[in-house]
Amino acid sequence: MIRILILLVFFSCSKASLTQRPSLTLTKEGIEKIKAGLDTAPLFKKQLELVQKEVDTHIANGIDVPIPRDMAGGYTHQQHKVNYKLMYKAGNLYQFTGDEKYAAFVKEMMMEYADMYPKIPIHPTQRSYATGKIFWQCLNDANWLVFTSQAYDCIYDYLSESEREHLEKDLFVPFADFLSIDNPKFFNRIHNHSTWANAAVGLMALAMNNDTLLQKALYGLENDGIDPNEVDNDGGYIKKDGTRQAGFLAQLDYSFSPEGYFSEGPYYQRYAIFPFLVFSHAIHNKRPDLKIFEYRESILKKATNTMLELTDPNGQFFPINDSQKGMSYKAFEIITAVDLMYMLDNSQDDLLSWAELQDEVAFNEAGFITAQKLAEIKTTPPIKKSKVYGDGIDGNKGGIAVLRLDETELLFKFSSHGMGHGHFDRLSYSFYDKSGEVLQDYGAVRWVNVDQKAGGRYLPENNSFGKQTIAHNTIVINQASQYKASVKKAEETYPELYCFDNTNPQTQIVSAIEKEAYSGVNQQRVLILHTDEEFDDPLMIDFFICNSENEVTYNLPLWFKGHHMQGNFDCSKNLTELKPIGDSYGYQHIWQESICPTEGDNYQFNWFGNERFYTVTGVNEDGDNIIMGRAGANDPNFNLRPDPVMIHERKSRGHSIFYNIIESHGRYNRTTEVLKDPYAQIKSVNIIHSEENYVIANFSNGNSTWEICLSTNNNNPERNHEVSVGKSLYAWQGIYNIKKIKN
Amino acid sequence: MIRILILLVFFSCSKASLTQRPSLTLTKEGIEKIKAGLDTAPLFKKQLELVQKEVDTHIANGIDVPIPRDMAGGYTHQQHKVNYKLMYKAGNLYQFTGDEKYAAFVKEMMMEYADMYPKIPIHPTQRSYATGKIFWQCLNDANWLVFTSQAYDCIYDYLSESEREHLEKDLFVPFADFLSIDNPKFFNRIHNHSTWANAAVGLMALAMNNDTLLQKALYGLENDGIDPNEVDNDGGYIKKDGTRQAGFLAQLDYSFSPEGYFSEGPYYQRYAIFPFLVFSHAIHNKRPDLKIFEYRESILKKATNTMLELTDPNGQFFPINDSQKGMSYKAFEIITAVDLMYMLDNSQDDLLSWAELQDEVAFNEAGFITAQKLAEIKTTPPIKKSKVYGDGIDGNKGGIAVLRLDETELLFKFSSHGMGHGHFDRLSYSFYDKSGEVLQDYGAVRWVNVDQKAGGRYLPENNSFGKQTIAHNTIVINQASQYKASVKKAEETYPELYCFDNTNPQTQIVSAIEKEAYSGVNQQRVLILHTDEEFDDPLMIDFFICNSENEVTYNLPLWFKGHHMQGNFDCSKNLTELKPIGDSYGYQHIWQESICPTEGDNYQFNWFGNERFYTVTGVNEDGDNIIMGRAGANDPNFNLRPDPVMIHERKSRGHSIFYNIIESHGRYNRTTEVLKDPYAQIKSVNIIHSEENYVIANFSNGNSTWEICLSTNNNNPERNHEVSVGKSLYAWQGIYNIKKIKN
Repeated sequence: MIRILILLVFFSCSKASLTQRPSLTLTKEGIEKIKAGLDTAPLFKKQLELVQKEVDTHIANGIDVPIPRDMAGGYTHQQHKVNYKLMYKAGNLYQFTGDEKYAAFVKEMMMEYADMYPKIPIHPTQRSYATGKIFWQCLNDANWLVFTSQAYDCIYDYLSESEREHLEKDLFVPFADFLSIDNPKFFNRIHNHSTWANAAVGLMALAMNNDTLLQKALYGLENDGIDPNEVDNDGGYIKKDGTRQAGFLAQLDYSFSPEGYFSEGPYYQRYAIFPFLVFSHAIHNKRPDLKIFEYRESILKKATNTMLELTDPNGQFFPINDSQKGMSYKAFEIITAVDLMYMLDNSQDDLLSWAELQDEVAFNEAGFITAQKLAEIKTTPPIKKSKVYGDGIDGNKGGIAVLRLDETELLFKFSSHGMGHGHFDRLSYSFYDKSGEVLQDYGAVRWVNVDQKAGGRYLPENNSFGKQTIAHNTIVINQASQYKASVKKAEETYPELYCFDNTNPQTQIVSAIEKEAYSGVNQQRVLILHTDEEFDDPLMIDFFICNSENEVTYNLPLWFKGHHMQGNFDCSKNLTELKPIGDSYGYQHIWQESICPTEGDNYQFNWFGNERFYTVTGVNEDGDNIIMGRAGANDPNFNLRPDPVMIHERKSRGHSIFYNIIESHGRYNRTTEVLKDPYAQIKSVNIIHSEENYVIANFSNGNSTWEICLSTNNNNPERNHEVSVGKSLYAWQGIYNIKKIKN
Repeated sequence: MIRILILLVFFSCSKASLTQRPSLTLTKEGIEKIKAGLDTAPLFKKQLELVQKEVDTHIANGIDVPIPRDMAGGYTHQQHKVNYKLMYKAGNLYQFTGDEKYAAFVKEMMMEYADMYPKIPIHPTQRSYATGKIFWQCLNDANWLVFTSQAYDCIYDYLSESEREHLEKDLFVPFADFLSIDNPKFFNRIHNHSTWANAAVGLMALAMNNDTLLQKALYGLENDGIDPNEVDNDGGYIKKDGTRQAGFLAQLDYSFSPEGYFSEGPYYQRYAIFPFLVFSHAIHNKRPDLKIFEYRESILKKATNTMLELTDPNGQFFPINDSQKGMSYKAFEIITAVDLMYMLDNSQDDLLSWAELQDEVAFNEAGFITAQKLAEIKTTPPIKKSKVYGDGIDGNKGGIAVLRLDETELLFKFSSHGMGHGHFDRLSYSFYDKSGEVLQDYGAVRWVNVDQKAGGRYLPENNSFGKQTIAHNTIVINQASQYKASVKKAEETYPELYCFDNTNPQTQIVSAIEKEAYSGVNQQRVLILHTDEEFDDPLMIDFFICNSENEVTYNLPLWFKGHHMQGNFDCSKNLTELKPIGDSYGYQHIWQESICPTEGDNYQFNWFGNERFYTVTGVNEDGDNIIMGRAGANDPNFNLRPDPVMIHERKSRGHSIFYNIIESHGRYNRTTEVLKDPYAQIKSVNIIHSEENYVIANFSNGNSTWEICLSTNNNNPERNHEVSVGKSLYAWQGIYNIKKIKN
């Protein structure tokens, strides 16, 4: 109803914006400001000069529009990517400089595409659920249209009416139709692919003033005929139960949690945010009546901030779900987002701080404004806080939490399944200190755009290893993944947040419960970051509580980053033979380097990474084993990184608790050869009491003992608890208490 | 005869320097200059403030002189290391500031040592060929004395005569005697250990004005009674045939080649240069008549420059022989060397450039002068040239060569055996581009000072793997190391330089011959760096020519750094089992990941490292295999890095040639996900003709073909050569010719 109203308003108020060019991500007024103020925005000016140099070189080299043939990474793929970016840049340059050679270049290239497009069939590779025409997948064709529509807007007035007619009739309209009505599975879905599709069609609709297409872009196809059981290349369902809407506004409704978290994780959020913002930017300019940036309580603003917050101490995105490591706040999508959001609301100082770190600005008015401001004022580094992010459109389907204390960061994942890109990794965490990854999430098994590795697509080991539970720092039961690796089952349920508390300056805690991942087993994990003057770095305290009806074998893996130094369990590495640990659910991909029973009350294992030392100290039970493994078995094409893992193994029935502490300590410098604190300070860890409702535990460094009391069945922070163990009485208020006692 | 004369001069000219303090590495005049000019030398001033802060903290914390007990890395070891550095720093601070609290601190600590020293036996560990008293090895005791003697010199005038008598009688003289007459195997040898011993005793002799000790330090013990077959902990012989001299001057005579190359390699040269320079600095101040820096045609000046030149593009020392990777020009020994050499001859602009990069100066007058100059002028980056360095005291026992072209660097090793720290690696090379290691030398299997790893000592795998031929980029025959890993045999012979030519701006070449490493096999390797506008980076062209009386199996390993991308030989990695490649000479430490026969005329293998791509393209013969391996088998304590290797295997008798080209190309950025040139440009490599005297070969990228002609049996650069192959005549002058032909 509301949407119909909006469309009525359209025809009455948008006359001016229909005639003035540019009108999408650039405006006439903006261009005038930029031309007048170039010297006040040095970062933008530098960028302009760089782009100009780059485009001039390409103009000199001539245009190359090859017949589509190659997979990602191959020649025709790369060339068409270069082309759409060139058209975009040259279009903008025409506006910024007024030099007609740029407009001529864009026009000529568009004409070559208009000549080719009607003649070519769909791409010969045919390896995608939605094969494109220019590229192997529609997704890349949508990328092409997102950029090219902006270029078209820039040179619109430069073209004659007949030229425009030719381009629209032979290229742009068929292109948009191909991505929408010809590919409903691609277009009519709640997914980042469809966001690109909607934005591509919508941007070209705005550029052409084509209302029919704009309708489709905003509201989706009316009748798509998609089978609800159909899956995409990544194994994700095309349709999610209960979600029948489609189109750009539906993407805004269904892609994010209320805090702006994106189920697929920040790596894909970074990718998806770009079409959201570019199309919204154009709607904002051409259809201000739609108030797109206020839509769903400013969801795009929240999504941008959330994305920036989901970076590790080096500014790289937490690599949960299918993520290629190394992606960071320096990605051009994030630069675009930061500058645009800053232009829309320049009270957001933190965005300016991020822009300063990015040291690059968007190639548009937002970038210009940001650069102007950066030249004026001195920023301070952005502050990232500990926070919990609900998952799901109502924010109540699990979530993720980030604990941050003294440059130490912990990401805890208890979200719902990340659609086609989800991993079976509930209750897993990854851990970082100021120097980098300490306990890693492997990320995706993929080299994006690298042709040698299966054309840059996901590698088979992404399904057979990367997504499996054993590839993550969370418990595996009976060597099988959560939900026996069924996406359908995993999408039906989600973990439950038990508590999150970041109010104590010395201690932060998060806990979640998962009851469905393994049938007959309740799991609860409690993670605590705790700092004390007796330790240089915060401690990571981990309680993993399981309750199983039947006897099961637990495996708790720690994917430590670095080189094996020493364990207190005297366990020799296999000398002359390696075999995989298991034969399915990812175990077939891990060479077993050693297996030994633990000895005494505690196991302790020490490794070296990031020029620092790390130690895990954990509680043994009789019969527990420690397995050392390394990724790389059943990996015929050498796709896996040979990363090491330590696995704590236990057979148990009923209530069972895993308790360990990760300590970051000391350092080593290879140039001075000076080392400091190579050994852990923690001498012992003990479980004093553990049952359904309470856990009492301690740890000691010899000088002091720290007592930890947990209420695991009542999360009321006001509630008082008392537990008697032998002659000792433990009394505290709330979910947890940590007490230090001098020995 | 000359030395006797020098000593006579001693008594007549050194009266002034006998009474003036400080007198070793500081002088009275220098101290006055520093006090007056502190503000003109900001880098030095900053350092002074840092040191002052550090020492003040230690003074506040009190003195700790524990009874010796631990191995390297352990508590008492670390504490005594801290102590001698503290005494040195506090002594200097007393001179720089005049504040007596520093002198009092040094005095008090020395008194504690004087109290303890007479009471303690030799160190309880007893794991060294020369066990120390304060430390597990005499070497560390010598370190102690080198620093403490300078501290003593600084507070000499602060102490009463009776205090000096006590310290000298109960601590310093017994300490020096222990390191010399009590440990002749440690003191009376041509080796970096003995250089430390000589310098330690000599510095304390100068500090105490003790001529008896000075004599020993300069000229060694007259009668040491060492058995010529005795070896040290690293397997090096205590005595080298034909070298019977000892003492500091003999070290200068026998430690370096005429260019200042040190047989053990730059990692140990960095360690050894420090006592050379500190003692020489003191001799220079207190015994200028000895003209120590002019000794052996200024050998210390040459040694310093050579050391700086033997760094890779990141400034890290080439890790040949036993070297811990990561050691660089930023080491404090190199800072000391650079500043001292600059003070002695400030026409050496390059030294100032290095000092600028070091961003730190020595804590003495040389550091002050360097800092003053750095504040005055702007430096340019130091220039490192291609060069060949003869090995052996006459420079004729093989050598090493560095080829440098467009930020690409190649180190070729054909030196004599590096004594106790030598590896069996003749004709091996390591290869670097601007972004780091491309083909690595593994270095030593050791974590220096890291207690967890066997107290920081060499690990067993250093002998069984690190030193073996297969751990290096050179041919192994019949799975046995060169000289069957006999140090004695390796020390008897050395390779021969065939040619070195860096005069062509497009091409650099080095070649050497080895006839003894494998009996019955002559080996010659020719390495060429060649740059051409059709390639972004220089090509590394490798010809390895062997001639064997009997049929043998060759293995040519390439220790590539990075991740396996793709090979043209379709060779699946072992899926469910790994076993070592062999059972001795290091082969027992390599897991065999795959083995396949090569196909067609060329093998091609592509890997990804340093965010770039690399490809080797080589010539196959029928029956050749490619083996993929990974270090880590027979490694019970997880000591080895899991590094990958590709091995080209061939069975052959008579003349056989290995020909391959390494191409660095393209790049990949994980944030932009943009990749460039992931595939090699070289399409084929061919041997056209190969026999005793000549090699004719070519390679092609499809557009052009490059023809390479080599004269391998006549290295006269003027000589004309003609070779007919079929109907083609190849004619050229000199050792090599590369001709480009457009296809």
